[in-house]
Amino acid sequence: MRIPQHIGIIPDGNRRWAVQNGMEKQDGYRHGISPGLSLYRTCRDLGIREMSFYGFTVDNTKRARTQRHAFTAACVDAVEAISREDASLLVLGNTESPMFPPELLPYTRRHDFGSGGMKINFLVNYSWEWDLGFQKGAVGPCLKTEDVSRIDLIIRWGGRRRLSGFLPVQSVYADFYVVDDYWPDFTPDHITQALEWYSGQDVTLGG
Amino acid sequence: MRIPQHIGIIPDGNRRWAVQNGMEKQDGYRHGISPGLSLYRTCRDLGIREMSFYGFTVDNTKRARTQRHAFTAACVDAVEAISREDASLLVLGNTESPMFPPELLPYTRRHDFGSGGMKINFLVNYSWEWDLGFQKGAVGPCLKTEDVSRIDLIIRWGGRRRLSGFLPVQSVYADFYVVDDYWPDFTPDHITQALEWYSGQDVTLGG
Repeated sequence: MRIPQHIGIIPDGNRRWAVQNGMEKQDGYRHGISPGLSLYRTCRDLGIREMSFYGFTVDNTKRARTQRHAFTAACVDAVEAISREDASLLVLGNTESPMFPPELLPYTRRHDFGSGGMKINFLVNYSWEWDLGFQKGAVGPCLKTEDVSRIDLIIRWGGRRRLSGFLPVQSVYADFYVVDDYWPDFTPDHITQALEWYSGQDVTLGG
Repeated sequence: MRIPQHIGIIPDGNRRWAVQNGMEKQDGYRHGISPGLSLYRTCRDLGIREMSFYGFTVDNTKRARTQRHAFTAACVDAVEAISREDASLLVLGNTESPMFPPELLPYTRRHDFGSGGMKINFLVNYSWEWDLGFQKGAVGPCLKTEDVSRIDLIIRWGGRRRLSGFLPVQSVYADFYVVDDYWPDFTPDHITQALEWYSGQDVTLGG
């Protein structure tokens, strides 16, 4: 089976999952941490070399405060959980805003945890405008996420078929796979199915 | 029904269509011109305000010369056909390369043809690197496609689920609809189905 080198992860559907399960919307986020670890282990065992994980965005911080607190706490917990595994971990996002959790500042330089290995890029308070330095049609001078490679496969949970601002430059050639289940209902089968589908796609890079 | 303001069109599958119909690969492209006009008229009648059409890319020009000649000729014909309709037409792409067809140079400034109306952006010898001024992690200083608005809905023919470098900045929030049929088999029904699907999606822009 053809295995992608770099997978992008858009873990959507936390709030819809919470409502479906009789909880408050913000309660969904903490149920997304254990799926994230399970995903990490699944991908590590498959030999995936790099993963980019969509934590939260600058757009997301405009949501209700209880939700903002909940997804911020979930991202902090997730990053700390990964730091107890084997990973070459980097958190990327706009650190010059009060929305960036100070607990994650030490992770904004890439560091090998455990025996290192898989490159993990975790987006926190990210925005594509910040990434590209986009302002009134001007861009640059550099890509803030230059250290993130081209993505081969993007998997999005929660049924929506859009990138929602996720790493536009790295995603230009990515194959896009959508899982209808909500993110907290993650199972390793989702990855198996996505990889089977990916395996049947050709890679042309436009050529 | 909620109608998108701006639709992106990725008309893929011309070569596969040609092979399936017992022709040479390059013969597919000229069968894509009449579908393009039909698409234009369908969208105009629906009140779509802007369309961006993926003609060919810098990556595409690496293909066999007979194919390159065929898709270049098809793009020239398509642009000239649109210029006989009502449209505010602009051709965008890297004009500083011998791959850019000189016949299309007059169209690289936006001009109202007929009674104007729908804004049409036609990408010819386009590349996302050119668009963003991307070079070794540096970007800018400006977006070459600044005159192209944010895209609401992208429709891709030919079954592949990827952007293939299509307008990364304008596509950040776009909903992505894939038609399995090859582009030369376009029918207005494809648009109806795409719009029905789009109508059921919410618009959050990450909020």
